[in-house]
Amino acid sequence: MVKLYRGMRDYLPREMIPRERILEKIRKIFRRWGYVPIETPAIEMLETLLGKYGDDADKLIYKLDHPDGLGLRYDLTVPLARVIAMYNQQLPKPFRRYQIQPVWRAERAQKQKGRFREFVQCDVDIIGTQSPIADAEILAISIEILSDLGLQNFKILLNHRQILRGLVHISGFSADEEFSVLRSIDKWDKIGGDGVREELEKKGYERKTIEKIFEFISLENTNWNLLADLSKIDDERVQVGIENIRKIIEYLSSLGFGQDIVRFSPRMARGLDYYTGAIFETVLPELPSMGSLTGGGRYDDLIGLFSGKGKIPACGTTIGLDRIISAMEELKMLPESHTYTKVLVAQFSEKLSSAALSFSQKLRAAGIQTELFPEPKKLAKQFAYANKWNIPYVILIGEDEVEQELCVVKDMKTGQQRTISQNQAIQILTQTLDTNER
Amino acid sequence: MVKLYRGMRDYLPREMIPRERILEKIRKIFRRWGYVPIETPAIEMLETLLGKYGDDADKLIYKLDHPDGLGLRYDLTVPLARVIAMYNQQLPKPFRRYQIQPVWRAERAQKQKGRFREFVQCDVDIIGTQSPIADAEILAISIEILSDLGLQNFKILLNHRQILRGLVHISGFSADEEFSVLRSIDKWDKIGGDGVREELEKKGYERKTIEKIFEFISLENTNWNLLADLSKIDDERVQVGIENIRKIIEYLSSLGFGQDIVRFSPRMARGLDYYTGAIFETVLPELPSMGSLTGGGRYDDLIGLFSGKGKIPACGTTIGLDRIISAMEELKMLPESHTYTKVLVAQFSEKLSSAALSFSQKLRAAGIQTELFPEPKKLAKQFAYANKWNIPYVILIGEDEVEQELCVVKDMKTGQQRTISQNQAIQILTQTLDTNER
Repeated sequence: MVKLYRGMRDYLPREMIPRERILEKIRKIFRRWGYVPIETPAIEMLETLLGKYGDDADKLIYKLDHPDGLGLRYDLTVPLARVIAMYNQQLPKPFRRYQIQPVWRAERAQKQKGRFREFVQCDVDIIGTQSPIADAEILAISIEILSDLGLQNFKILLNHRQILRGLVHISGFSADEEFSVLRSIDKWDKIGGDGVREELEKKGYERKTIEKIFEFISLENTNWNLLADLSKIDDERVQVGIENIRKIIEYLSSLGFGQDIVRFSPRMARGLDYYTGAIFETVLPELPSMGSLTGGGRYDDLIGLFSGKGKIPACGTTIGLDRIISAMEELKMLPESHTYTKVLVAQFSEKLSSAALSFSQKLRAAGIQTELFPEPKKLAKQFAYANKWNIPYVILIGEDEVEQELCVVKDMKTGQQRTISQNQAIQILTQTLDTNER
Repeated sequence: MVKLYRGMRDYLPREMIPRERILEKIRKIFRRWGYVPIETPAIEMLETLLGKYGDDADKLIYKLDHPDGLGLRYDLTVPLARVIAMYNQQLPKPFRRYQIQPVWRAERAQKQKGRFREFVQCDVDIIGTQSPIADAEILAISIEILSDLGLQNFKILLNHRQILRGLVHISGFSADEEFSVLRSIDKWDKIGGDGVREELEKKGYERKTIEKIFEFISLENTNWNLLADLSKIDDERVQVGIENIRKIIEYLSSLGFGQDIVRFSPRMARGLDYYTGAIFETVLPELPSMGSLTGGGRYDDLIGLFSGKGKIPACGTTIGLDRIISAMEELKMLPESHTYTKVLVAQFSEKLSSAALSFSQKLRAAGIQTELFPEPKKLAKQFAYANKWNIPYVILIGEDEVEQELCVVKDMKTGQQRTISQNQAIQILTQTLDTNER
């Protein structure tokens, strides 16, 4: 028997239709902010992919059995960096790009809900500016997308790599230990504060140093109070980070997004090594186990690493399509969608098929999604088919109707059936059906 | 220096924007005919992929360096067959599905224009009915898509595997030789009739037998005359095929598509082995070297092969996105699109950034795609940026404007500049800009 490879998913229509609708909304918002699309191939040279993501990633990359040294992309950020390196002159800065494509990760098992070996990333990045307006814009886009999808009460967790590095430094860790400490702190949401403390102890750090960093990262307060507290710390990186965070919050407010939605969180660390400035993610307090719905930050060094032409600042976020869909499912926000079809034209008999064909085409010309049942089977079977796919209307043209250009319209929800003129049917249906979908 | 793997392509915004627009049109038409989307993973078990496509394909499949025996999909038809086998009960028949995803082929070199190692297929198939209405519907969809994209004068070449097999048989070839002969005939467009004759001779077939099949496949005449000629042949398969072709043409005409667009062609063979009934492709007589823009046919046995539950008839076509785009490019039908952005809001000074941010957001709220220049650089630089990305309008809010809620609107095409109220600007822009794109 044929089977699917573990960790991979098929999307049948009832999963795909909400996915398509959500992606169309996301794309519309990306475009409204002036972002333009790129796409890159699934297969990249291994030399492009390897060693850019940190320790664990290399073994997570699917490699091809091929002499040229090829692998499947692991995210959309490295392909973006390659694109900037290769076509820099053709892409005037600031370059605002979105990219919606699958990525592959050879995860050992499905540890966490919504974690798969193939999943679609929706990335939005702005390249070539250090202005905190860019960071605010990326956050505003994340907020607009989640709001537009009907999600409520989500929060943006905001932090800054310079602040974190400053705090790690003044707590007494060495520069070499920085990323290792950040990676432990990053697990706070999953394993809790005690878990982080334990992990740091296991890594062999001194208890005193650990307690010192905990003084900072376990702080809880309003944004301004937290920022005021930390601003007393005499460390240049912390100062720069705080000034940057203040600006981002201020610009976000000029864009119409109040502080209630943003939560400065000194212990939010993000896993990837390449961030250099603000980092952020959105979470749903109602679904704490879901993890972040979107996540990103500023990475001013990564792209220059590829192009070798100095610093090219960048900032962006991933919109976690699968997580968002899981969240909406759990919150019962996904409408049941079996089909886009609004009308099934039934077939009465072989002899009348020409009338059915031509009427179905008239409905389509009016913008109404219409299927024709391809065989003159028993009507009960054709009605059952419409019910199985949740098609709201069935239209019949029988012997009596064909000559007078009439038709029988059956509302499958109410069971009501009426005979009206074919033109009238088209008129009524165009008015009834959601014009947005045409 | 980073590089791209040979045979792979990056799509920058000016390629992606027309691609997105074309795909949106294609999707709209698929849905209007009642087709629903599915997606399947890029990675399939090798045992699913291998041996289903014919002789050459096995070496064209990209295999992963992985103990579980994995490969990248080669087309969207085998994944469809697997989906039907696995979820048959959840998909009431007829099941009309579309699928738009990339496929990968380890082609040795780029022999033909528009042939790449990764390319997007747009497949549309109807599963579970033998009615020739399904074949007609698939052809109608192909016609509507090409017409909707503005292509003209294209022709549908229509033939039938039963007719071909009958002709091969009565010409004196054995049943074993059938596919080999068909594969040679399939090359007619590329190597011409003489080339086909030569190839068949090289394969060792008798000259007499070859001449006999050429009597049939070199026939040129109107559809009805050709069909009438062939209908004199005393072979059941030929008879069944001709009756089927007649029906398809008749149903297509009930759907409003006249005969001028369909050309019955006894020498159009299609490469793949799995077709069992009607086969078809669309070609542009103006661009004979381009090959077919769409191609497909009926394949009543393939899906049953996977599910092992007897015959599940099916019929469908691939819409060749890359070929279509190449054709439209060559015919100068692709508009230059650099961006979706309609307005760049310039930044006057750090002090006025709040006004610029909030006005940019008002424009977006009105559905106008708007970018904000993230830094208060020299205006000449900001104008140059707008010109490079072909953004039609730049809006400025300077010291003089901010208090009276005015703004300066510059039309980048004419260079004209006028100061109006901010609300007026929104009103005028919403009216001017193409509302379809919002």
